[in-house]
Amino acid sequence: MLAEFFATFLLILIGNGSVAQFKFTGPPRQSHLAVQITWGVGVYTALMVAGPISGAHLNPAVSISLCTLQKLKVLQCILYVIGQIMGAFMGSVLVFIVYSNLFSQYDGGIRQISGANGTADIFVTFPYNDELPNWNCLIDQVVTTGFLMIFIMALGSDYNHLISQPAKPFAFVLVIMALGSGLGLNCGNPMNPARDFGPRLFCLFLYGRAIFETHRYYFWVPIVGPIVGAIIGVWIYEGYIQLMKKYADLGSTVHIESVEQPIDEKQPQHHHKLKA
Amino acid sequence: MLAEFFATFLLILIGNGSVAQFKFTGPPRQSHLAVQITWGVGVYTALMVAGPISGAHLNPAVSISLCTLQKLKVLQCILYVIGQIMGAFMGSVLVFIVYSNLFSQYDGGIRQISGANGTADIFVTFPYNDELPNWNCLIDQVVTTGFLMIFIMALGSDYNHLISQPAKPFAFVLVIMALGSGLGLNCGNPMNPARDFGPRLFCLFLYGRAIFETHRYYFWVPIVGPIVGAIIGVWIYEGYIQLMKKYADLGSTVHIESVEQPIDEKQPQHHHKLKA
Amino acid sequence: MLAEFFATFLLILIGNGSVAQFKFTGPPRQSHLAVQITWGVGVYTALMVAGPISGAHLNPAVSISLCTLQKLKVLQCILYVIGQIMGAFMGSVLVFIVYSNLFSQYDGGIRQISGANGTADIFVTFPYNDELPNWNCLIDQVVTTGFLMIFIMALGSDYNHLISQPAKPFAFVLVIMALGSGLGLNCGNPMNPARDFGPRLFCLFLYGRAIFETHRYYFWVPIVGPIVGAIIGVWIYEGYIQLMKKYADLGSTVHIESVEQPIDEKQPQHHHKLKA
Amino acid sequence: MLAEFFATFLLILIGNGSVAQFKFTGPPRQSHLAVQITWGVGVYTALMVAGPISGAHLNPAVSISLCTLQKLKVLQCILYVIGQIMGAFMGSVLVFIVYSNLFSQYDGGIRQISGANGTADIFVTFPYNDELPNWNCLIDQVVTTGFLMIFIMALGSDYNHLISQPAKPFAFVLVIMALGSGLGLNCGNPMNPARDFGPRLFCLFLYGRAIFETHRYYFWVPIVGPIVGAIIGVWIYEGYIQLMKKYADLGSTVHIESVEQPIDEKQPQHHHKLKA
Repeated sequence: MLAEFFATFLLILIGNGSVAQFKFTGPPRQSHLAVQITWGVGVYTALMVAGPISGAHLNPAVSISLCTLQKLKVLQCILYVIGQIMGAFMGSVLVFIVYSNLFSQYDGGIRQISGANGTADIFVTFPYNDELPNWNCLIDQVVTTGFLMIFIMALGSDYNHLISQPAKPFAFVLVIMALGSGLGLNCGNPMNPARDFGPRLFCLFLYGRAIFETHRYYFWVPIVGPIVGAIIGVWIYEGYIQLMKKYADLGSTVHIESVEQPIDEKQPQHHHKLKA
Repeated sequence: MLAEFFATFLLILIGNGSVAQFKFTGPPRQSHLAVQITWGVGVYTALMVAGPISGAHLNPAVSISLCTLQKLKVLQCILYVIGQIMGAFMGSVLVFIVYSNLFSQYDGGIRQISGANGTADIFVTFPYNDELPNWNCLIDQVVTTGFLMIFIMALGSDYNHLISQPAKPFAFVLVIMALGSGLGLNCGNPMNPARDFGPRLFCLFLYGRAIFETHRYYFWVPIVGPIVGAIIGVWIYEGYIQLMKKYADLGSTVHIESVEQPIDEKQPQHHHKLKA
Repeated sequence: MLAEFFATFLLILIGNGSVAQFKFTGPPRQSHLAVQITWGVGVYTALMVAGPISGAHLNPAVSISLCTLQKLKVLQCILYVIGQIMGAFMGSVLVFIVYSNLFSQYDGGIRQISGANGTADIFVTFPYNDELPNWNCLIDQVVTTGFLMIFIMALGSDYNHLISQPAKPFAFVLVIMALGSGLGLNCGNPMNPARDFGPRLFCLFLYGRAIFETHRYYFWVPIVGPIVGAIIGVWIYEGYIQLMKKYADLGSTVHIESVEQPIDEKQPQHHHKLKA
Repeated sequence: MLAEFFATFLLILIGNGSVAQFKFTGPPRQSHLAVQITWGVGVYTALMVAGPISGAHLNPAVSISLCTLQKLKVLQCILYVIGQIMGAFMGSVLVFIVYSNLFSQYDGGIRQISGANGTADIFVTFPYNDELPNWNCLIDQVVTTGFLMIFIMALGSDYNHLISQPAKPFAFVLVIMALGSGLGLNCGNPMNPARDFGPRLFCLFLYGRAIFETHRYYFWVPIVGPIVGAIIGVWIYEGYIQLMKKYADLGSTVHIESVEQPIDEKQPQHHHKLKA
């Protein structure tokens, strides 16, 4: 789907751009919080562009987990994932073009993955340090992506009267920012196979095959972790809401209407009164 | 109530996770503001998940103070509180699992409550330093939780046309962030017995009994302080709004009715259905 | 008006509290941005509490300038101002109580206005340094309060379809934060006679008469500046909107309805369609 | 148009004011993020003031690119651009007046463009350093302004049910903040010919002709770059949405209509009236 491509492209452009800006700015002025906010706004932008068309999954883990709920057809899911990875690839290409001069100033023209002049962490994620094993990053990704999917499901729940359509994108800014600030230390919190794999493909051209071998072939962690986590998260929320329906008696149609209708009716009533 | 358990679990997972990330990141890049925002978003997430079901109190002080207003039955209140403490316990367990490797890197595998390699402040709150007496923390907690409850009551007031259902969760992000930045220095501003006591129970396994004895048995302060403060806050607001009703004649002015009535109607309708 | 008292009390409690926390935290971790946000949220809280009752002016400059537009009666205006100053006074008393122990730790129990252990800047504002003359601070206050009033008038304008009632308090958080970050260096941007004068009265008890004499009797600047600036701002906006009405043909009732009505109609239409 | 003048004036007043505050505050406490937020809020304020009247373009690149879509008449466009440049000029004059004393404290009264005491970067943008060539800044400005215009077009799209009128100004705060944090390192991300050229005209009085000659006559980059980028961005989005209309069949799906139609109706109604 072109919409997924376009949206993920914009997300990675501004997201990875913010990491580049963070890196090239250097310690005294750089702000990790600004990076988190920028990723959040990247998602906001992507929602504006693709939300009304494809739903703006932006994330293979989201697409695949929704597929397990049969909310998405398998073929559609595959096309979305391809679009997402291609968009992430192109986004990182443009980040490199925009900051090409600063890249060369930083590393003197010799591209390195890590070390003092390493720049690969602009594009892809890594474990916090060499001692951090991949299984710990895997747990991290399962938990954080699970958290994200529970949040997404709760936003979209029919019973949720604490959210409105225009408020949803803002809520995403908050949760992306918070997950990056709260559970992002182990491995930079990719939570998205496309966000890591797309730029990593581009890194193949910049740094060679080593980008896949580094940190004990870490590259599979941000692919498998988010997908597993998203599926678990989706099913936990489904189970939770089924339980709630049974015991809290949420499922009566009456209740939904009683929550939604007054909101719809509020405005005109207000207007009539003002005119009267 | 399962909803309270689930919501408090998510709150503590991301909230205590952000404190862990803050601690392990170290001075040059760590951002206290990011921690405050993350706690705020934790509350946002919890509201999304449990708000439509249990109201997402998340906090024994909130539940108990609403109980004194007879807005909550005593049995329900007790169940909520148990759910909240269990949720906070499980949330801190998961934070420990996610960051287990970084815990060991930080303290070399020897868990300590305080000192250079102390990690207990990730889970529970402490006075700012040893000189700060517990009575000062108690005042702090009474004031801040009182402030929080006045805010909550004002958000829910029938006369308040400056808020809407989808805007409420965002307002919570702001007030949690601000209370942490404005009145949080004395003792990290728990404002929530479950937020402190649940993780403290888990700390029993990590650090032994000393976690309850440290800082002159400080552990009771974030239990008693918030409950007392919340009750005082709730009653101050009730008194204030009763006074306003009498002298400002809120209940009958045409102008106010025209603006407010639909909002007023919404709430009771919703509540009736929930009770029915 | 009690509502103005209560609201200003809460504003100063959390606002001055955040300055205290900023000061006592010390350089490596303190965040000026957090202080600005907290002031913004203080205004948000005050709006929640007093907005539906008195409009939550919180600020003598706002009350007096609206009085010059005859949107407020003179007697009401005087009562509001008295309430605001008393609220600011009580708010700073409570800040002192909450942080009393940290005050004593900071200055060893000897209250000083300025110098290494000076604490008066927690309560009141000062020029950035001794070289900055009072006339420059006066210009600063006229400009920033004028900016604030133009913003307030624009928010409340009948022609403004880019704002809604529940969005207004959030807009205040932004503008307070931005004015503090953008035009706040000269003298800490009080913009509010009550915010400076109320706490300064309390400082009389802590530091003696010198609090009024310091910086060449600076104390009158944050009283006169905001009032003059607010009146200028209000009238600039009034002139601007009158001009717009004449030339841009805004004033036809049709236009207002055309802007407002569709918003009011949107919701039910949407609902009907969903049901159909 | 007076509205464009007034709005750009306020934008530059608070925006350049925040850069001045950033500069004069110095490293330990200065916050780049606060500057980004303040620019965002400047746009918010400008939208409040001019949005209902002229649409608050604030930016010649926006006006000209909309002109290429024939959404704006050529004469109107020229008047808007003149208003924007004059507003930016006057805004920077007022920033200089408000901070005049701190300017003199900073540079001892000798105005310098760059160097240790240089102050011109408060008013205008420069490349990050001398090694950064102008063509790289040009690419940067084309990309970022293109991104901005895609965002603006997506916000205004008839199919976008994820935004509402009162939410739009908040969305601008986010995207301005994020573009400054994510793609702003090369040349401070002007994205707006008026924002750079208006203050640069004022700098002629402060620093002489050198302000136009510095950095290899860089001054044309933030004029040409944004205009080219905005036009490209606008047409990319137009092409994208045409493609989506054809293949995703946006215009006729029942589901979309039921959600969207009222929003679609609102806009034209509003526009008809404005034109009438």
